[in-house]
Amino acid sequence: MSKLYEEFQDYLTKINQYDHITTLLYWDMKTGTPRLGQPAHVDALTYFSTESFAMSTSEKMGEMLAGLTAPAEFDALTDTWKFIVKEMKRDYDRNKRIPADVYAAFVQAQAQAGNVWVEAKEKSDYSLFAPYLQKMIDLTIELTGYTDPDKEVYDALLDQHEAGMDSATIDGLFDTLKKELIPFVKEILARQKPENPALKGYFDPNCQRKVQDLLLDYIGFRKDAGSVGETEHPFTLNFSSKDVRLTNHYYDHNPLSSIFSAIHEGGHAIFEQNVNPEYDNTIAGSCRYMGLHESQSRFYENILGRNRNFWLPIYDKIGELLPPFQDIPLEDFYREINYVKNSLIRVNADEVTYCFHIILRYEMEKAIFRDHVPVSDLPALWNEKMQEYLQITPQDEANGILQDMHWSGGDFGYFPSYLLGSIYDGMLLDTLQEELGDVNELLKTGKIGEITAWLNQKIHWYGSTRKPKEAIMAVCGREVSAEPLVRYFKQKYSEIYKL
Amino acid sequence: MSKLYEEFQDYLTKINQYDHITTLLYWDMKTGTPRLGQPAHVDALTYFSTESFAMSTSEKMGEMLAGLTAPAEFDALTDTWKFIVKEMKRDYDRNKRIPADVYAAFVQAQAQAGNVWVEAKEKSDYSLFAPYLQKMIDLTIELTGYTDPDKEVYDALLDQHEAGMDSATIDGLFDTLKKELIPFVKEILARQKPENPALKGYFDPNCQRKVQDLLLDYIGFRKDAGSVGETEHPFTLNFSSKDVRLTNHYYDHNPLSSIFSAIHEGGHAIFEQNVNPEYDNTIAGSCRYMGLHESQSRFYENILGRNRNFWLPIYDKIGELLPPFQDIPLEDFYREINYVKNSLIRVNADEVTYCFHIILRYEMEKAIFRDHVPVSDLPALWNEKMQEYLQITPQDEANGILQDMHWSGGDFGYFPSYLLGSIYDGMLLDTLQEELGDVNELLKTGKIGEITAWLNQKIHWYGSTRKPKEAIMAVCGREVSAEPLVRYFKQKYSEIYKL
Repeated sequence: MSKLYEEFQDYLTKINQYDHITTLLYWDMKTGTPRLGQPAHVDALTYFSTESFAMSTSEKMGEMLAGLTAPAEFDALTDTWKFIVKEMKRDYDRNKRIPADVYAAFVQAQAQAGNVWVEAKEKSDYSLFAPYLQKMIDLTIELTGYTDPDKEVYDALLDQHEAGMDSATIDGLFDTLKKELIPFVKEILARQKPENPALKGYFDPNCQRKVQDLLLDYIGFRKDAGSVGETEHPFTLNFSSKDVRLTNHYYDHNPLSSIFSAIHEGGHAIFEQNVNPEYDNTIAGSCRYMGLHESQSRFYENILGRNRNFWLPIYDKIGELLPPFQDIPLEDFYREINYVKNSLIRVNADEVTYCFHIILRYEMEKAIFRDHVPVSDLPALWNEKMQEYLQITPQDEANGILQDMHWSGGDFGYFPSYLLGSIYDGMLLDTLQEELGDVNELLKTGKIGEITAWLNQKIHWYGSTRKPKEAIMAVCGREVSAEPLVRYFKQKYSEIYKL
Repeated sequence: MSKLYEEFQDYLTKINQYDHITTLLYWDMKTGTPRLGQPAHVDALTYFSTESFAMSTSEKMGEMLAGLTAPAEFDALTDTWKFIVKEMKRDYDRNKRIPADVYAAFVQAQAQAGNVWVEAKEKSDYSLFAPYLQKMIDLTIELTGYTDPDKEVYDALLDQHEAGMDSATIDGLFDTLKKELIPFVKEILARQKPENPALKGYFDPNCQRKVQDLLLDYIGFRKDAGSVGETEHPFTLNFSSKDVRLTNHYYDHNPLSSIFSAIHEGGHAIFEQNVNPEYDNTIAGSCRYMGLHESQSRFYENILGRNRNFWLPIYDKIGELLPPFQDIPLEDFYREINYVKNSLIRVNADEVTYCFHIILRYEMEKAIFRDHVPVSDLPALWNEKMQEYLQITPQDEANGILQDMHWSGGDFGYFPSYLLGSIYDGMLLDTLQEELGDVNELLKTGKIGEITAWLNQKIHWYGSTRKPKEAIMAVCGREVSAEPLVRYFKQKYSEIYKL
């Protein structure tokens, strides 16, 4: 090991300590900090993020990266460290152009906007949130101007969330979905029976927690390397592959919410727990690609979790833990979790109409960053697109434009990742069945461990070392296409709705 | 404001950021970190504690404190800052003598010993813990040699936990208790009826949480400035008066444990929430005196919580939240929470025999630090003293010497604080009744808010600005004495046991 390499490792260790702390502050602000304690946490978060950012973009870091990418040093690196150094150099070159005060302003605005969004959603009052949204948009444009001066803003944002993706590619994929799914959903709705929920009444939140624990254990989430908190909006974060946290929420009258959030966040968490531990605390560890990340959470949630056979080996146990399930036949439960309808809330949507919720948000984001639609016009645009794709209008802003937290965190360009994830899932399902056999058979016989092991080996292990398009090519042997997802939808829902 | 004063404030802000983080890491390790995530948290805790300690003991800090304590600067300070600067100067002079590596070793050993203690207690195997206990003892002696070179080790430890206390004073107080209570407990036990627990069967932990929330709210814990976590061993910590956390545990078959831990930790938390907020993030904020702190938790737990009248206004509500209580008459509950018996576990002991549990630990600590009894002989000594004071022998080490976490954290000299707290409580009760009238009347009529307001004003507001003996003198107008506590015990238990 060269002296430079050792010096670099020491420097990274210190940055990692700061990043460890910002992760922890964020976790605690969401799960345990009382209202009056939030400002002190925001101060600390701003302080440590700013320090970490300053170290990551320092002259010293620039010199070390320049040294390590020069042939004499670079050739002596392992393949993993070749990847890490190259990626860090790319990040450095982009980030060093951001003035420290702009970065600090962004981190602080993010925390403030997050808190205001919670309040605005509670009061269903978009006007409270609008100025903070405007600030996040402005700061995002400013930041992107520094990081990606040669890219159109929205393409830069897409690439930041899913490296290698741009709006031309996404337009193509989403157009296929629109062309195929708009008429298909009409067909389904024409055959749809009136809604007659199988799940009614009170479901003890404490029992929902037990079901959650069963499901997490069943799909392969490891409790010794993870824990579960409670928040209004579920999420997953990780310190390393050895400490992955997820959150859930428990509604007295809607157990499906905690059940599918557990499986979804569990999918994210299983990804993180199974990245090559050698990558821990480097840019290679953890998955930086949101579409690829969502492909795993949504594979568990939808491809597996909304399959009848997933439930066969565990449905009786669920009835033991959450007694009202003893009176709900599996067939009724299955029908309910795949009941297609035009609805208001993305996270509660069935997997088919879910596509429209994302396409709507994607088009909203293009309107914000490409057409510069003013913040004050966004609620009307939202409602217009809800009518276009889902033929309904939200009764209030809490159930409309305020429903998601993403924009409050400046996460513009994230939403398409969900649907890209499902598109990858269609392809992964094809390959998985070629290699392991019929997924129904595997699920029916409780062999979900084999599926998780396959995903561990094919996707999770690599962390961030393969970009999404490369990963899909490596696993499936073909370019990204929406066709397998469409075929999966048509096959599954034609059977359910006897089309 | 002088330039030096401003520079000092900036420096303190940075130290505070680090201390904020060590508090958070500790909280998260106890409440949310999975097993495999612990080492990374220990690393971070070691890193940030060491950095904070280095700043607090730096040359720069020394120069600033020397400057600020010189008359020209000192005379311009507010009274609060005069106190803070003087106390910090005293701490600085003591701590700067500790070598940084010794301090880092102590922090790391503390975290390790804490984890090993949990395992050793689970396995009831003292031999696992013994080498870590030895290390904590050695490091404590080494540290005390630096901080208090002129003091006998155990007196130094007592003073660290309860400023102004020494073993001569404590010997005197505890001798009074032994002289009065040993025969008194014999009298009680001679009249004692066989144990016939009123609380039997299953108590839903989720319902216990609801009772806890009711109790915390009732005694005055503010949810907007605090939150509750779950740990095996309940504790309270605080970031500032605006963010005070406590923990609790919930045993299926023993609701008294969560009920009295909630009231006890709630007492600590109410203290911290009501310190003058101007003292936040300084050495004056928060209470550094463990006896004074325990006097508040134990005032709520025992003086109020074990009084029949405390329960009158809320007992029906408790039955609504925790239905088995509907079948337990208040009179039976009252008798049970004051059932005197010789038992093994300190935290479950009645308030009278509790005194012996502390006296035992105080004598154990004197044996460790004064008589140098080897670690391997401590279990036998423990059992011997259990026989002497409580006439029973633990069936295993988990219920004997391993029951408390304190020594694993190097908290030698803490235990006497509990009993000093009760001794202060006897005196505070006298004064409170002189000023507010009969405590039974206040409790019966639900006027607990008046009691909390009185404690806020007389004790909590001052934080650390008055040392325990000063605080007691200021509030009660006399020197610390065990006589009021003895009188309280005799009056209360003579009535219960018709002596």
